Amino acid sequence: MLPRSLAIVGVGLIGGSVGLAVRRQSPATHIVGVDRDAGALGRALERGAIVEGFTNLADAVACCEFVLFCTPVDTIAQQILAAAPACKPGTTLTDAGSTKGAIVGALNGRLPSGIGFVGGHPLAGSEKQGPEHAEAGLFVDRVVVLTPVAETDRGALNLVTSFWQALGANVRQLSPEAHDRALAVTSHLPHLLASALAGILPAELASLTASGFRDTTRIASGDPALWTAILSANRSELLEVLGKLEERLGEFRRALEKQDLENVRNLLSAGRTSRMSLQRNP
Amino acid sequence: MLPRSLAIVGVGLIGGSVGLAVRRQSPATHIVGVDRDAGALGRALERGAIVEGFTNLADAVACCEFVLFCTPVDTIAQQILAAAPACKPGTTLTDAGSTKGAIVGALNGRLPSGIGFVGGHPLAGSEKQGPEHAEAGLFVDRVVVLTPVAETDRGALNLVTSFWQALGANVRQLSPEAHDRALAVTSHLPHLLASALAGILPAELASLTASGFRDTTRIASGDPALWTAILSANRSELLEVLGKLEERLGEFRRALEKQDLENVRNLLSAGRTSRMSLQRNP
Repeated sequence: MLPRSLAIVGVGLIGGSVGLAVRRQSPATHIVGVDRDAGALGRALERGAIVEGFTNLADAVACCEFVLFCTPVDTIAQQILAAAPACKPGTTLTDAGSTKGAIVGALNGRLPSGIGFVGGHPLAGSEKQGPEHAEAGLFVDRVVVLTPVAETDRGALNLVTSFWQALGANVRQLSPEAHDRALAVTSHLPHLLASALAGILPAELASLTASGFRDTTRIASGDPALWTAILSANRSELLEVLGKLEERLGEFRRALEKQDLENVRNLLSAGRTSRMSLQRNP
Repeated sequence: MLPRSLAIVGVGLIGGSVGLAVRRQSPATHIVGVDRDAGALGRALERGAIVEGFTNLADAVACCEFVLFCTPVDTIAQQILAAAPACKPGTTLTDAGSTKGAIVGALNGRLPSGIGFVGGHPLAGSEKQGPEHAEAGLFVDRVVVLTPVAETDRGALNLVTSFWQALGANVRQLSPEAHDRALAVTSHLPHLLASALAGILPAELASLTASGFRDTTRIASGDPALWTAILSANRSELLEVLGKLEERLGEFRRALEKQDLENVRNLLSAGRTSRMSLQRNP
């Protein structure tokens, strides 16, 4: 079930894709966009991802029953706190931030009564940015993690669940802490690694890269400011899994130094088995 | 220019793709395949990548003017030494191995006179295996590195250059050492990293991976035996670039530990700049 009126705060790739997806499923929904970047609003209007653009957050949320924050993770909590007093009672707020502990923690117990908030994170995206790369089908068969806590309003949780399901996503619930622990290894560490590998490539060897290097480093093209905020917000979990990776690299190093080829092969086999198992997951 | 008769030793993904590509460019070329795996020969025949299959190397090379070895890097040199006495004078031998120093070094000065050898490496491939995944267009616009040394026969070098150019590749020359130093960072380290990252993923988190994790680890599905041989053959160069990567990871670690977000951002920006530059390379 989709709301009759929706405000999308931050009309980038994710926000723009939500707009296109909602319009496709529910042409009657009034979709407004909020962005401090008037150019992004213009491009989102052009794509048909929104029907009205606002640079003022309070004006936009005052008229909408459902508000989705698709802004950088280090700004979401303060924007929600700023927007909530302008919302009508019964408004549902949610977000698409890549980290959840800090955001959910900052909001818990601090919203006006009658305003429901549910933390969320669609596991979909791209290294591309902006509404010009938005896709209506971005969430189809993708996982969206919602992170309700004890205080979360059950009505709001149901609405946010239905919202993402209507866009084709598989909704799962995790605690904010379990989400951040999982995403540290499934998303934040890969980003750090891709960036590190791309960063040590000598420029003169660029023409000797093939699809392996390019795939392994694709996500390093992501926006540095957005990713600084994500890595920083989840730094303790990230440092933990970075330690595990450094240990595994040390095992490879020692096996190669000792020419212990059986161990090199075992380590490669462990990676292959794990990677092959992903192909069986949705 | 393509030879009138070609033996492909090892009819896997690369060997099979060469067969399909040659057949497309030069239907008159007699293409024979050699493999100890009769099943692979059968599938290569079925795909039309070869017209005749041999399990005996000497029988196959005796009738061909051009022989390409697409076998694992730890077997190529010994197979070439075994095949050379059965070749007619004037036969050109080359290979598609992912490391070059050990192979070229093992053969230098050890081939019968009249038999020319040129080390080669097409920078094309896939984590998939077998002639069933072969593609006639695999080498179009890809780089093929040839690694001639002072002793290399210039006629053989010209023939091998023309061979790959006829399949659409851009041929470059590097010394075997320069090749191995470059590929350590552009190919062998990415493989090790992808494998390490896939290998530390807890199985229960597989369903929380998205395209970022999947791209970053795609090549970890490669054959562990083949890659053990490659990593081992190039281990000193690989250990050197692994050290550089470990240093860069240490820089990320310290910046995150100190909450030095400016430095996190600078490191991410360096990765992004490098990765974006690849999109401008062919």
